[in-house]
Amino acid sequence: MKLPEAIKNLADELSELPSIGPRQAMRLAFYLVGRGEQNIRGLAKSVDDLRQIKTCERCFFVHQNKDGLCDICRNPARKQSIIVIVEKETDLISLENTGKFTGRYLILGEIPKTGLMNDWQKLRLQNLKSFIEKELPGKKAEEIVLAFNPTSLGDFHASLITKELEPFSKKISRLGRGLPTGGEIEFADDETLGSALEKRG
Amino acid sequence: MKLPEAIKNLADELSELPSIGPRQAMRLAFYLVGRGEQNIRGLAKSVDDLRQIKTCERCFFVHQNKDGLCDICRNPARKQSIIVIVEKETDLISLENTGKFTGRYLILGEIPKTGLMNDWQKLRLQNLKSFIEKELPGKKAEEIVLAFNPTSLGDFHASLITKELEPFSKKISRLGRGLPTGGEIEFADDETLGSALEKRG
Repeated sequence: MKLPEAIKNLADELSELPSIGPRQAMRLAFYLVGRGEQNIRGLAKSVDDLRQIKTCERCFFVHQNKDGLCDICRNPARKQSIIVIVEKETDLISLENTGKFTGRYLILGEIPKTGLMNDWQKLRLQNLKSFIEKELPGKKAEEIVLAFNPTSLGDFHASLITKELEPFSKKISRLGRGLPTGGEIEFADDETLGSALEKRG
Repeated sequence: MKLPEAIKNLADELSELPSIGPRQAMRLAFYLVGRGEQNIRGLAKSVDDLRQIKTCERCFFVHQNKDGLCDICRNPARKQSIIVIVEKETDLISLENTGKFTGRYLILGEIPKTGLMNDWQKLRLQNLKSFIEKELPGKKAEEIVLAFNPTSLGDFHASLITKELEPFSKKISRLGRGLPTGGEIEFADDETLGSALEKRG
């Protein structure tokens, strides 16, 4: 059936967003209409305000600062020589929320399913290498942590990037593997339990 | 950790939408930032354009027409005396897409889990009664179809509304129950199979 343009356009745009299907997009559009003019205007403004968001020229995380660096990269208390490479901004947030890391990050973007990096991802890695060569003593980082998901794709990607970054860091590591806190041994899969045995201590 | 206001605000607003959790809301906000200024502006405009959407004064479906009626209610080829009551706009769309109905609709809104209608839902039902009394010959509709989901809540609601609307319609019906097309008898639940037997023909 023919729907009003405004509904159709928004549903189309929403359905292009990750993990929102055409059906949910349509439901959201109708829901928003039902919330009334004030709320619609508010959401439109919040979306538009995203244009104020800048990307850190060092780690590519978001910020709204006047210069080009995010809150983490501009913080003199953070060690610039220990770098965690993550795929997504939300991974960075999860790691920051542990309160246990005082180095900096590089957001590499999600690894394509092909296992090969996009051009802009290669540029981000190049950006990191240049930073290490120009800014760090001995032209080497203390440590680079590859915080990719513990999946076969993550493992494959980590092995490629390890090779590429070896000349630029004294140490390259990954996040520890083992039993998740609160988990039960009985229900742990073989891989996890194997890692837990290997990394016991 | 402290996130830029614009990200935080949008993620908060998105997470208030149905079926979007705080984690997905945050991912969506970052995704939008990554799509760049042009796309952000486009989505903001599409959301804002929803303000042009009006609600049909007869059936409460959406429209962008100059007067108060939607495309279905203004269409002289649609019988005004056969009325399908649906919960959601998306239910109406699904029914319209069958191309098998030539009457009109009433959108009643989702039935609250308590089984009791909200005040605005009671008003919509009242609106339908007034329409029938003023506009239809004999002050009765030919048929009212209660197109609620075939669930216990839907059944309960249908029985309440049937009582309420009985004086206003010659016939009150519900959508047929039985095996869904493409389904397998072996995997049909008892209720469905029972209905299929009862309604065989």
